[in-house]
Amino acid sequence: MTQRLIAPPGLKDVVVADTTIGEVRGAEGFFHYREHDATRVATEYGFEEAWHLLLEGHLPTPEELAAFVAEVGEARGLPAELGRLLPLVAGSGDARDLMPRLRTLLSQLGAVEGFAPVWGADPARVRADVLRVAAVTPTLLAALHRLAHGLPPVEPDPSLSAGASWVHLVTGGVPVPEVERAISTYLGLTLDHGFNASTFTARVVTSAGADVVAAVCAAIGTFTGPLHGGAPDRALDALDAIGTPDRTEAWVRGRVAAGERIMGFGHGVYTTEDPRARVLREVAAGLGGELYEFALQVERTVLDTLAELKPGRRLDVNVEFWAGVVMEQCGLPRSLFTPTFTCARVVGWGAHIAEQARGTKIFRPLARYTGPEPVRG
Amino acid sequence: MTQRLIAPPGLKDVVVADTTIGEVRGAEGFFHYREHDATRVATEYGFEEAWHLLLEGHLPTPEELAAFVAEVGEARGLPAELGRLLPLVAGSGDARDLMPRLRTLLSQLGAVEGFAPVWGADPARVRADVLRVAAVTPTLLAALHRLAHGLPPVEPDPSLSAGASWVHLVTGGVPVPEVERAISTYLGLTLDHGFNASTFTARVVTSAGADVVAAVCAAIGTFTGPLHGGAPDRALDALDAIGTPDRTEAWVRGRVAAGERIMGFGHGVYTTEDPRARVLREVAAGLGGELYEFALQVERTVLDTLAELKPGRRLDVNVEFWAGVVMEQCGLPRSLFTPTFTCARVVGWGAHIAEQARGTKIFRPLARYTGPEPVRG
Repeated sequence: MTQRLIAPPGLKDVVVADTTIGEVRGAEGFFHYREHDATRVATEYGFEEAWHLLLEGHLPTPEELAAFVAEVGEARGLPAELGRLLPLVAGSGDARDLMPRLRTLLSQLGAVEGFAPVWGADPARVRADVLRVAAVTPTLLAALHRLAHGLPPVEPDPSLSAGASWVHLVTGGVPVPEVERAISTYLGLTLDHGFNASTFTARVVTSAGADVVAAVCAAIGTFTGPLHGGAPDRALDALDAIGTPDRTEAWVRGRVAAGERIMGFGHGVYTTEDPRARVLREVAAGLGGELYEFALQVERTVLDTLAELKPGRRLDVNVEFWAGVVMEQCGLPRSLFTPTFTCARVVGWGAHIAEQARGTKIFRPLARYTGPEPVRG
Repeated sequence: MTQRLIAPPGLKDVVVADTTIGEVRGAEGFFHYREHDATRVATEYGFEEAWHLLLEGHLPTPEELAAFVAEVGEARGLPAELGRLLPLVAGSGDARDLMPRLRTLLSQLGAVEGFAPVWGADPARVRADVLRVAAVTPTLLAALHRLAHGLPPVEPDPSLSAGASWVHLVTGGVPVPEVERAISTYLGLTLDHGFNASTFTARVVTSAGADVVAAVCAAIGTFTGPLHGGAPDRALDALDAIGTPDRTEAWVRGRVAAGERIMGFGHGVYTTEDPRARVLREVAAGLGGELYEFALQVERTVLDTLAELKPGRRLDVNVEFWAGVVMEQCGLPRSLFTPTFTCARVVGWGAHIAEQARGTKIFRPLARYTGPEPVRG
């Protein structure tokens, strides 16, 4: 028998792929896209630049950026078949739960537009496929959101930036430049973050040679798992539960005494401050207002109280906390926080799918049978 | 930094989970469900017995079997919302490509029926969810098939066995006992087969705590990958290409000279005859007829010719070859070969999802960054 290797549970600390897309250095509080500091890309450039960097391997020249923004804008539209499907898909069950419905519509996009297997495919075609899926995702999510609220979907405007388009698709209006900029920074900051579980899922499906839609639908599944993390609405729910700054300390003590987690604090990878939280705090400061002041005060009180209650254990604010604040400041309804995150992350999945498609072995590990010895027939 | 373990490509020979569902012993030409020889379960019992064995851990008593068959029959029906969606989902693009459309409809089933995360869920609820998804899959596939051919879907009959129901949903008629038995044996023989890539995918999604539908939609994606294997229609296409028995040898020599694979021969895990091929050859012999004689003759000629052309390399017939023959003998159209396999395999995915849901760590491995050293901001 071949020598088997017993992996640690959950494949923790096991390297399963090589990548040039980027990396998270948890101990340094640093992550990068290609060879660029991700926080700089998000703040000094924006979403489309980061997207281009992941997909093409370099930051765009002004000409490349204009062409890329136009290409993304054009890829935003829906085929007529999906337009007809939308009301039926939106209208059943708890229509506010958008993620399963996004998966339904993307799955059918794969059928309607005939996405072909990535196995043996021209990399240019895989690139076009992942761009299409990422560009159309906000259109589908916003349409589902509006239909759930009895509003007709908004026709995508190919001339808008991705950040402005997201607000436009949701509200029908065009955001002020500060909001467009804040959303672009948020999306650029969260489109990829190492080898998280949904990204790994997308690569497993791709490794079998399946099409891009198959991989993205699978990644959405993992992404909706409660253990995946990344639900910025929960951090805002915590702010609601606290209500006023003076109640923060009592609330934290109550949660800790009850053995409950403080949403928005702590991260599995960073042992220092999450750099995304730092950037988004700055974005929130720029937008200003009462919510920012409240959030800042809550952050300080939570950290001080946790330092007292759990000495020696460093717990920093994470991306969810300040992401939630920024999205609230931008006027996005809370049911769109996770969908907004999805609009970013689908770009990262696409980059990993395109990289995986360039050819590696199918992921086909083993399980160890631990039941009773079988009886031979 | 934590010590990282570099896994072999594709996680080959790496054990990533413990299971009591079953095991494939490739060198012995043996596989089992729980502690029972899988070929015996499939031939001496049938599909529902194997399904019960995987889900409940033991072969059913007659009373348990009757209750289980009734439960599966009742779970075969579609909610009205999916009935309305069916024609729109079936009617776009290449309607003969059923697998993406199955994923679309299952995804929406998850939304409509509100499948909840498996994380922290009562195992009885997870069991009900995986049974529901597996029971409804044939109904959806057959309806999509009929609509693609301009025929109305057939209302499921809860009183039929799963094997008879599959033919009924496809054709509207009830099969003769020999065909019902052959299909039941085929489904029972193929519902699980170790830790293949789609099964692994289902477990990765489940490990994040997501719902059953999320995991099955993901598994379907991997299953459609050209590298996953398991397309019995390709073996039949080879029989068509050969045409008559006397042309077999020349055809094999031509394929080998062109460096092409002979579909239906060779397997990644078995180094001896695939036990499923052996059983299905016997099933095909029982059904008899011209196709069986032709296939038997082709099998012998291919093996003899390969033994001469590739001495020292053992290449046996695999499950696809005889599965294709049996399905053709049962009158199933070739476009339903992979869907029929799916009706079986979704049961195995369900068993693995239920096992994974009982609690393990989220699969979150690492990638190794191999690009240029990043510039700190």
